[in-house]
Amino acid sequence: MIEWKNLDTLAAYEKLKSLNRRVKLQDCMAGESGAERVAKYSVPMACGFAYNYAAKAVDDEILDVLAELAEEAQLTEKYAALYNGAMINTGEKRLVLHQLTRGQLGEPVVADGVDKREFYVSQQKKAADFARKVHAGEITNAAGEKFTTVVQIGIGGSDLGPRAMYLALENWARQNGCCKLEARFISNVDPDDAANVLKTIDLPRSLFVLVSKSGTTLETLTNESFVKDALRNAGLDPAKHMVAVTSETSPLAKSSDYLAAFFMDDYIGGRYSSTSCVGGVVLSLAFGPEIFARFLDGAHAADLTAKEPELRKNPAMLDALIGLYERNVLGLPVTAVLPYSQALSRFPAHLQQLDMESNGKSVNRFGEPVRYSTGPVIFGEPGTNGQHSFYQLLHQGTDIVPLQFVGFRKNQAGMDVEIQGSSSQQKLCANVAAQIMAFACGKDDENPNKSFAGGRPSSIIIGEQLTPEALGALLAHFENKVMFQGFCWNLNSFDQEGVQLGKVLAKRVLAHETDGALKAYSELLAI
Amino acid sequence: MIEWKNLDTLAAYEKLKSLNRRVKLQDCMAGESGAERVAKYSVPMACGFAYNYAAKAVDDEILDVLAELAEEAQLTEKYAALYNGAMINTGEKRLVLHQLTRGQLGEPVVADGVDKREFYVSQQKKAADFARKVHAGEITNAAGEKFTTVVQIGIGGSDLGPRAMYLALENWARQNGCCKLEARFISNVDPDDAANVLKTIDLPRSLFVLVSKSGTTLETLTNESFVKDALRNAGLDPAKHMVAVTSETSPLAKSSDYLAAFFMDDYIGGRYSSTSCVGGVVLSLAFGPEIFARFLDGAHAADLTAKEPELRKNPAMLDALIGLYERNVLGLPVTAVLPYSQALSRFPAHLQQLDMESNGKSVNRFGEPVRYSTGPVIFGEPGTNGQHSFYQLLHQGTDIVPLQFVGFRKNQAGMDVEIQGSSSQQKLCANVAAQIMAFACGKDDENPNKSFAGGRPSSIIIGEQLTPEALGALLAHFENKVMFQGFCWNLNSFDQEGVQLGKVLAKRVLAHETDGALKAYSELLAI
Repeated sequence: MIEWKNLDTLAAYEKLKSLNRRVKLQDCMAGESGAERVAKYSVPMACGFAYNYAAKAVDDEILDVLAELAEEAQLTEKYAALYNGAMINTGEKRLVLHQLTRGQLGEPVVADGVDKREFYVSQQKKAADFARKVHAGEITNAAGEKFTTVVQIGIGGSDLGPRAMYLALENWARQNGCCKLEARFISNVDPDDAANVLKTIDLPRSLFVLVSKSGTTLETLTNESFVKDALRNAGLDPAKHMVAVTSETSPLAKSSDYLAAFFMDDYIGGRYSSTSCVGGVVLSLAFGPEIFARFLDGAHAADLTAKEPELRKNPAMLDALIGLYERNVLGLPVTAVLPYSQALSRFPAHLQQLDMESNGKSVNRFGEPVRYSTGPVIFGEPGTNGQHSFYQLLHQGTDIVPLQFVGFRKNQAGMDVEIQGSSSQQKLCANVAAQIMAFACGKDDENPNKSFAGGRPSSIIIGEQLTPEALGALLAHFENKVMFQGFCWNLNSFDQEGVQLGKVLAKRVLAHETDGALKAYSELLAI
Repeated sequence: MIEWKNLDTLAAYEKLKSLNRRVKLQDCMAGESGAERVAKYSVPMACGFAYNYAAKAVDDEILDVLAELAEEAQLTEKYAALYNGAMINTGEKRLVLHQLTRGQLGEPVVADGVDKREFYVSQQKKAADFARKVHAGEITNAAGEKFTTVVQIGIGGSDLGPRAMYLALENWARQNGCCKLEARFISNVDPDDAANVLKTIDLPRSLFVLVSKSGTTLETLTNESFVKDALRNAGLDPAKHMVAVTSETSPLAKSSDYLAAFFMDDYIGGRYSSTSCVGGVVLSLAFGPEIFARFLDGAHAADLTAKEPELRKNPAMLDALIGLYERNVLGLPVTAVLPYSQALSRFPAHLQQLDMESNGKSVNRFGEPVRYSTGPVIFGEPGTNGQHSFYQLLHQGTDIVPLQFVGFRKNQAGMDVEIQGSSSQQKLCANVAAQIMAFACGKDDENPNKSFAGGRPSSIIIGEQLTPEALGALLAHFENKVMFQGFCWNLNSFDQEGVQLGKVLAKRVLAHETDGALKAYSELLAI
């Protein structure tokens, strides 16, 4: 029997709070005890990754209490309820089924009269067939020319995840001979966004993917019109250059404005939709459906790992619980995500949405205010770039920011260069190893300006290479981490009511139905 | 007589702390009093911008005390000392002269035997002449073909600022017929970064700008070798494809490896170097020297505005002091920068470095630990994209994050589309106006999940259009804001000792001179 309880009603949470500030990283990460921690505080993840939390401010006793907390909060049971089709998104009265886009984790889930796994697979197959026809030149522009560019039009989850995934695999695909179409993205309602893309693509050979679950997203519909105007002005028929990804009930679903339509449903939130057709159509077109299938396999493997009930063997749950300890016991409000991989340049932006939109909430799933901190602010940039930027504050600022590193032993492209006895990839890896230790242990110096206090916690996810499978596993790891944290905080991590008020007020501005300060701002902005 | 005093020794700071939590935005921004605040709490900036702080949690009494604080901390005098050539960067015993790259603010500054303003102007002239010759086809590749692409190789301040500025003006330049060369950027030591750029440019027609003040930056020299290998493999002479931006004393300065060398000096920190040749060479090549000159004019105009001693007439000082009130009195650790302009997509990443590297410090300029919070974490993405991502947490999360909006009345490109009675640009502006009010006033709802507490402070910088002048003014505004905050916190905002330890440890890893945890991590990463 699942009970949805607030974090501060759990006995293990009270116990956890008494274990505050007991781990001094400067000591336990030094010398041989440090090496022992690195060996011990590591758990295998899917697809050859390991989650290493040696440099987190935890010890066996804290981990034991976190395991008690995980059990008391029924994390494994709640995850099972979710993938077996319980109505986890209570606010919107919806199931939460993004995991089913990549595999069957439990019982078949039947909703709206269909087996949902079969539904998602059928849409993937439709997207795969479509992509193959485009690649084979069976679907072309009116002049019979092959499409060379695919442009995704979407915002939020219809943009950030798919864009981050595309960038993550672009170099890998080039190296592995599977770059089929170049992908571009239009998201912002700022007309300069679409203008910039339209002026730098080969319009007659471009295929547009319009992504809106509801078919009513202001930005996306506006950009659709923008693009259609441009197509018509170039003497092209928009209906021959555009497909839709939407829900079956949306106004876009059966429109003749599109070459084809691919469906998702209300059980997949935007920020969890990269493995649905929202990511699937553009990624299958860009790299081929086989690559997208490998990406799904990796995500499914991570989902399976998340079923493990024992905390120390479940990397997503561990990551979640350690994050909770940092947030609610150590009181740290921000987390930085720092992938040492240029291919993951927009992965932090995706995680920013995933995490902050899921758990940035002040009421529990019953609408009652909570008396503890929930989701942290998430930000990040790739290393080593960040080292030459904001790491100054991370090392020597007055606040402590927990860090989440990601690193790979091998790079994606075949190119590298050896300088001063080491390759670029070795330099990259050496830097992330060095940073972990610098943050944990610091360094005394007689000049206080050159001193490093240390005691700044970090974890690292280490993989072999950023392949499609690895990317899928990484994506799903964070989705599951966020889900487990939401369970602990007793939040509904799958709605986003906080985005509504702004939309309502913006409409009022455009209708000139404003007064007071809103009218004053509107005038200043010449609306 | 300038005195460098800690914030917590100032009488005005004690007074300020007693004024905590007195402004309830939900009340004062509602109704006509809100409109009055919007009219009243606004100050003109350079280049037609206004800084509007109506939705910040301040009132006249707080502003009066902030003005006292500004005076007591001698902000105007310290700024004057800086631009007149005092040794403000005491840790490294250096002058701080980036403002001189764009104009003469006070007395001539003579250092190293030369008038520094004249020195910077001479380098700008050299860069302008070089760019004109490239544009005119007087400097070409060995085959006599014009260069079409310029690739900046640099990291940190040699990358983030110039890249953000390039992206900010790319659309504007296209619209105004002054796109001369396409610019690309290589920064990360990750070999996939350079590989990705090299595989997607026309190498024989590419010119590389190597940027390293010291001439010793690991990432940059590694990427230089990477690029030179690629050029040689393509049968090209690297010396005909590369220029250097460096200091006169660096090993790069007189090397025959470069077509030309352009100089900066130790008095310009990386994060303040966009207006020096670090930004000047690539931007002059990309858009023409006239455009870069206009960018400098805008920055200089903002520098002049920052000389104003009266707080309420000095936008950079106001922005700084209100930020300090939020950080040290309201206790808010993060600030989000949210430009409603896709062209400013990487401007937050530049500000992240500018702010966090300058003021993310725990010791004052004398090396003594401070007992108050200093620089906040800075993050941001363009609107409206962010609305569909992390705004959920900003609206309904358990923490309050102060916000810095930027908006423009006109977009850059000539293209727009009218849907449902409004243009995209109007929709963009309507959204930012709506967000300010939603954050400030919130909204009650009988469903607590749909309630918005409000009381979330924001300011907005409003401009006409993002032109080269406007961009320069915006850049300099934030540089001066960060400088004023550094003065208040009694920090040296111009060094970055926090980046050193990681470099030292990374070298040790590459030399295999490690033990303990560092060795263990190195092995996990297969170094």
